[in-house]
Amino acid sequence: MKLYSYFRSSAAYRVRIALALKGLDYEMDFVHLRRKEHRSDDYLALNPQGLVPTLVDDDGTALTQSLAIVEYLEETRPEPPLLPGDAAGRARVRALASAIACEIHPVNNLRVLLYLTREMGVDDEAKNVWYRHWVDEGLTGLESMLAGHPATGRFCHGDRPTLADAFLVPQIFNAERFGCDLDKFPTVRRINEEMLALPALAGTAPGDQPDSEA
Amino acid sequence: MKLYSYFRSSAAYRVRIALALKGLDYEMDFVHLRRKEHRSDDYLALNPQGLVPTLVDDDGTALTQSLAIVEYLEETRPEPPLLPGDAAGRARVRALASAIACEIHPVNNLRVLLYLTREMGVDDEAKNVWYRHWVDEGLTGLESMLAGHPATGRFCHGDRPTLADAFLVPQIFNAERFGCDLDKFPTVRRINEEMLALPALAGTAPGDQPDSEA
Repeated sequence: MKLYSYFRSSAAYRVRIALALKGLDYEMDFVHLRRKEHRSDDYLALNPQGLVPTLVDDDGTALTQSLAIVEYLEETRPEPPLLPGDAAGRARVRALASAIACEIHPVNNLRVLLYLTREMGVDDEAKNVWYRHWVDEGLTGLESMLAGHPATGRFCHGDRPTLADAFLVPQIFNAERFGCDLDKFPTVRRINEEMLALPALAGTAPGDQPDSEA
Repeated sequence: MKLYSYFRSSAAYRVRIALALKGLDYEMDFVHLRRKEHRSDDYLALNPQGLVPTLVDDDGTALTQSLAIVEYLEETRPEPPLLPGDAAGRARVRALASAIACEIHPVNNLRVLLYLTREMGVDDEAKNVWYRHWVDEGLTGLESMLAGHPATGRFCHGDRPTLADAFLVPQIFNAERFGCDLDKFPTVRRINEEMLALPALAGTAPGDQPDSEA
């Protein structure tokens, strides 16, 4: 498999974590978003949306969108599982992942921040207030889904990492990068720390990527 | 089953379509977002994020987040299927749904538009420019994933409706409501029309809901 990645892409980081949790080997190629490499004809042939990541399987199948990629890995490389064994549990894990992938991240990704500053003339301070507002609102929802829920364990759902945990870590990485106050989200923070302590996750963080500029 | 819905919620509309395509009976209850009924204690006990929709299954399981709900329906009520039979096909359908649910809709939902106008002092015209910008960018990506792809058929993937089509229809409904120009997206428009012509979809549109104010 080959993963087209960008060190700072939250969605690419999710897929790196999922691949790592499953112990899968893969090559990497790098798509520099600020240099607009995602708009090249070669890359658009693989990923017509021009987004990162893309995962190309050994048979040439090009997969896009982090949620779809991780579900594909779960179907084609089921061990160890990243979804629980029961339908209600799988729905909860997918809902937690969506709470990040559909509620928090899209409003704060690079192209939205660029639109705010370049097209709408928003200054850096207002941009950062925007960022922290959506992180705060989104993590308030996520914390309320996790705290006190009987299925929450060492990780988001039970004592083994799932797809939800693979999505949580990059979101917290970004929140910390933008100086968001995470004290109100003790369950989210605890699970993030449990995840970062896993040996499997070594080397997956943005700062550890070959294309990192951090 | 009981669906907690709001006539104008795009995510609730997706779930209404999925339930209709599967021919499932369900009760409805209504959560008025502008009256902040989604912030009531009773509703938050079902859906800690305070979002619409929530689907409560016959055994009391409360399901949140439209992608997770539709995957749950697919697992528990598999016929007719809303995902294709092969892993690569399922990944494509999920990626198309994510292209809507994670790329287009979140940036344009009600709370983001309210934040722009109330917190950032953006006027109506700039808000509508914002809306159309993200619809245009998102549908450009979606059209490029569909147009000319060998798996695109009468619907997004083949000749039977899938989860992707259930997500496409509400997005196009919203785009039309905001006066977006859809002429550049002939494949998206054609599939939307195929969907709207399905007898199963009768009664699912926002204007047909008992809580509609349109």
